[in-house]
Amino acid sequence: MTVQHQPISDDQRAVEDDVVERVLRSFDGCENPRLRQVMQSLTSHLHAFLRDVRLTEEEWEQAIAFLTEAGHITDDKRQEFVLLSDTLGASMQTIAINNEVRGDATEATVFGPFFVEGAPRIELGGDMAFGAPGQPCWVEGTVTTTDGSPVAGARLEVWEADDDGLYDVQHDDGRVAARAHLFSDDDGSFRFWGITPTPYPIPDDGPVGRMLQAVGRSPYRASHLHFMVTADGLRRLVTHIFVRGDDLLDRDSVFGVKDSLVKDFVEHAADEPTPDGRKVGGSWSSVWFDIVLAPADA
Amino acid sequence: MTVQHQPISDDQRAVEDDVVERVLRSFDGCENPRLRQVMQSLTSHLHAFLRDVRLTEEEWEQAIAFLTEAGHITDDKRQEFVLLSDTLGASMQTIAINNEVRGDATEATVFGPFFVEGAPRIELGGDMAFGAPGQPCWVEGTVTTTDGSPVAGARLEVWEADDDGLYDVQHDDGRVAARAHLFSDDDGSFRFWGITPTPYPIPDDGPVGRMLQAVGRSPYRASHLHFMVTADGLRRLVTHIFVRGDDLLDRDSVFGVKDSLVKDFVEHAADEPTPDGRKVGGSWSSVWFDIVLAPADA
Repeated sequence: MTVQHQPISDDQRAVEDDVVERVLRSFDGCENPRLRQVMQSLTSHLHAFLRDVRLTEEEWEQAIAFLTEAGHITDDKRQEFVLLSDTLGASMQTIAINNEVRGDATEATVFGPFFVEGAPRIELGGDMAFGAPGQPCWVEGTVTTTDGSPVAGARLEVWEADDDGLYDVQHDDGRVAARAHLFSDDDGSFRFWGITPTPYPIPDDGPVGRMLQAVGRSPYRASHLHFMVTADGLRRLVTHIFVRGDDLLDRDSVFGVKDSLVKDFVEHAADEPTPDGRKVGGSWSSVWFDIVLAPADA
Repeated sequence: MTVQHQPISDDQRAVEDDVVERVLRSFDGCENPRLRQVMQSLTSHLHAFLRDVRLTEEEWEQAIAFLTEAGHITDDKRQEFVLLSDTLGASMQTIAINNEVRGDATEATVFGPFFVEGAPRIELGGDMAFGAPGQPCWVEGTVTTTDGSPVAGARLEVWEADDDGLYDVQHDDGRVAARAHLFSDDDGSFRFWGITPTPYPIPDDGPVGRMLQAVGRSPYRASHLHFMVTADGLRRLVTHIFVRGDDLLDRDSVFGVKDSLVKDFVEHAADEPTPDGRKVGGSWSSVWFDIVLAPADA
């Protein structure tokens, strides 16, 4: 079912065009050409939206109230405007724009709000869980350039939610868990223990959560493990890997899923020996993730 | 000077198209067709903007910070999101959309944040200033329908800033001044004393003010007197009249000026007799404003 509007008269169109023209002209004196471009493009698209949907005055008031509420719920720990950007796909689109396709370089995805500077270093084969509850997961792969050369000493920051669907910083006890950094080996390889990713909802007790509910969308994110990979002369990669078979892959609330980032997390019984001989005391999983970094100028 | 971008590859375009498609599809399950239409149109225009300007991640962060600051400065008395809507012309465009051109009906303009319910009633020929500082101004006109019939008993709400550029509610002393309501006479005529409008800036000590400064725009509004006119069976009219000759007419910070609303405020010397014989003790002005109301279904 589509909502149809009456066609508007030529006189009415002229009135609306005139408003747009006057707003565009108001930015002509802006001495920063980039700022002028951004503001004039924003004006054009904003007014096109208002005119396309024939926004009512009541809807305009609702929009103002929504933004006001988003502003008031936002503080040091809660960022409702980022959630809004995420759930409208604007964050993912910005990531796509700024990480242009470059050969078979690994695709980027959303950064999310839970990265923390200064996560502890682990050695190759070490455990990033630091006691976070969850099924142990052996993560292994290589870092290479787009021409196939191994990247030694690439810095990998890794972080994820625990089995309760919470990042360490969402617990109130100051714990540091399920986050670490490590460096790739001389042959570009890396390996570490983490936990098998599980799904969790984005914070949905504010206006963005109510928007999702009103349009029939889930606040859940598909299960994922975050990576940020940096190496000299290569483009910084911010990405996740996702779990093949996860029900949420096609309705991730922030549109972060890319087919190329969906990986096979292989389930292993408790009695199966682990790659490094570690005793994990139960079932475990393993996943392989080869990371390809684009040149820095890409 | 225009900012040019490199053309993007077909592969890159496909990636960006895919993000848009996935966000649009996420609203397919929305059971409210109007909400679905609004969200899908918003998505389309928002992503078109991001892609047109190739928004950088740093600019995205600036946008989030801007909205956050706007949210935090907004309270019961200050509405930064309305200022943002006003200064991007979105408020005026919404007014235009919802007040379609109908014959020679008087044009609408922005409502503004300073209307107050329950302003005191004055009789025809009464004084709405209630002591507000400013040059006395005799305001006179008629209220008619688009077919020229006089409208008896139309309710006119009138309000304006004083000579200091402040509305009564912006003073901290609880005064009620420079606002009133009155009713048109049996022949549709009305007349009252107000004060000659003077220019004033919108609140410019927040993020919207800094945006205006960054793009080289003035925060000042052209001098104006507000009207809201209601009568049974006729479309509510929210408008202003502006002062011909005001330097700010072509750069009103909220794009409220319409040529048809610019009126001749005639200056009169102190010794010139006033229309109603009142002694005003100095120079005064007068203005004529004929108000034409559209049918209620327009």
